[in-house]
Amino acid sequence: MADFEVTILGSSSATPTFTRNPSAQVLQILGRYFLIDCGEGTQIQMRKNRVKFQKINQIFISHLHGDHYLGLMGFIQTLHLLGRTTPLEIFSPSPLKEILEIQLKHSETTLRYPLIFNEIDTTSHLKIWEDNCVEVYSIPLKHRLPCSGFLFKEKEKLLSVRKDMLAEYKIPIASIQAIKEGSDFTTSFGQVIPNYKLVHPKTPLKSYAYCSDTIFDPTIVPLISEVNLLYHESTFINEHSTRAKETFHSTAEQAATIAKMANVKKLLLGHFSARYGNLDIFIQEALPHFQNVETVEEGKTYLI
Amino acid sequence: MADFEVTILGSSSATPTFTRNPSAQVLQILGRYFLIDCGEGTQIQMRKNRVKFQKINQIFISHLHGDHYLGLMGFIQTLHLLGRTTPLEIFSPSPLKEILEIQLKHSETTLRYPLIFNEIDTTSHLKIWEDNCVEVYSIPLKHRLPCSGFLFKEKEKLLSVRKDMLAEYKIPIASIQAIKEGSDFTTSFGQVIPNYKLVHPKTPLKSYAYCSDTIFDPTIVPLISEVNLLYHESTFINEHSTRAKETFHSTAEQAATIAKMANVKKLLLGHFSARYGNLDIFIQEALPHFQNVETVEEGKTYLI
Repeated sequence: MADFEVTILGSSSATPTFTRNPSAQVLQILGRYFLIDCGEGTQIQMRKNRVKFQKINQIFISHLHGDHYLGLMGFIQTLHLLGRTTPLEIFSPSPLKEILEIQLKHSETTLRYPLIFNEIDTTSHLKIWEDNCVEVYSIPLKHRLPCSGFLFKEKEKLLSVRKDMLAEYKIPIASIQAIKEGSDFTTSFGQVIPNYKLVHPKTPLKSYAYCSDTIFDPTIVPLISEVNLLYHESTFINEHSTRAKETFHSTAEQAATIAKMANVKKLLLGHFSARYGNLDIFIQEALPHFQNVETVEEGKTYLI
Repeated sequence: MADFEVTILGSSSATPTFTRNPSAQVLQILGRYFLIDCGEGTQIQMRKNRVKFQKINQIFISHLHGDHYLGLMGFIQTLHLLGRTTPLEIFSPSPLKEILEIQLKHSETTLRYPLIFNEIDTTSHLKIWEDNCVEVYSIPLKHRLPCSGFLFKEKEKLLSVRKDMLAEYKIPIASIQAIKEGSDFTTSFGQVIPNYKLVHPKTPLKSYAYCSDTIFDPTIVPLISEVNLLYHESTFINEHSTRAKETFHSTAEQAATIAKMANVKKLLLGHFSARYGNLDIFIQEALPHFQNVETVEEGKTYLI
């Protein structure tokens, strides 16, 4: 298992097809599991892809079109039936709370675990969750309903001290924490050893941005600048660009343009309209604008 | 296509498994298509089994545990996206209306077709729908939530007149309707030809009863007496009969006992707890009580 990877559970827009399911992804960062959107059938897709249900502690729902959340109630109930006691946090536009509560009420279900609901302000770019290693930000998107993308970033880590240098300069244990935090070290002879000589080079911090659903909107570019992997919806191809605009969706070309403007390292296209069978044309239309691009495959895990 | 057949889309209780989906069935009677329960993933199962979505005009929901209705909102939205204009009737315990309306409101969806909601009185055995060929009755079931089974019956048909007799007795067109309705015919010579000589023998009227979810409850026996096919839940086997009682479910033996008491022609067992892999034991425990029994297979169509 890599330190940072995303598994695609669904890649269809609006309605499932013979081969594609509605939006859902599981992101794993340093052993933390995040569920991003939860279309109908997500728990079935999770079983097929051997995702461990109880490892998920945070769920991020972008907006309240059914293809992004209709699998959530079933997943919540299954976690309950499986005996979960660990709290589950949900981040979503606010009406989802009412939708979940009314269903729990009418099924007379009292969950065995705390369900913690966190309302997202879909108009702001804010830090919405963090622990000691990972932070998550909202990305305001422009769609027909209030909608938020999500930016997942590794946090700055302590430096890793070189063992050979510990021996060479006889560094006492009491000094190690300061070196990890970036300090130089002064030996008992008064020699100052610069920090960079004592530690391994920093590994770059990784990041993943999820942008679905949205019309072509360059105002998100500074928020997703330089991310390692960008998932951007591309519901349509150029032939249907008018339909994309009307329905507040993007084309493959527009997603590639955003990827180029933000100078991201890699682009994944997804959220395909059910009208398209073969997806090659999405790549053909994206490639002139951005080279490192793929159409997502359900069941595939992408390393970041 | 037979005149009366049921296709099983889901056979799991509570939560989907690797191989089983939550409750849903499509019943076809003389070209009418009825959806019975609609667990998560029903529309995906319908696609796999080539069920034509728009042919369904009535949906019957037994109760409001998620495994019996969580696929309904997605199906309703897909019908809308596919351009449906024909009314869709839903029969269910009343809170479902509120659950659907709140989700339509928050997704800002105005359906292109009329959604007609009919509340079921889960305490009474009542005719809840009919047309010229079929009638549907509620079956009060005893479960943890208000719950109704459904009885589908062919209506008495007009008799089918023998063409050879029309010629033999020179029967005028004006007299045919009366013969179809059971009258004798008097020839121009005053000879009375009894009706039974003029018509084909009656074909017996067929019926199907769906009983899920319910504790063992012999009070339903007179309501499902002599049906051609009974689907009865058997969530558990005898080893877990205490659990069955606690959760208001039935065992295979109890389902078979109901089938025997009601003198039905055939019994289908379904709604299996996720704890069971191989289902042979359900048959073993049912057989001593009722011979013509099967465990349902998803994707299989049973002729009635």
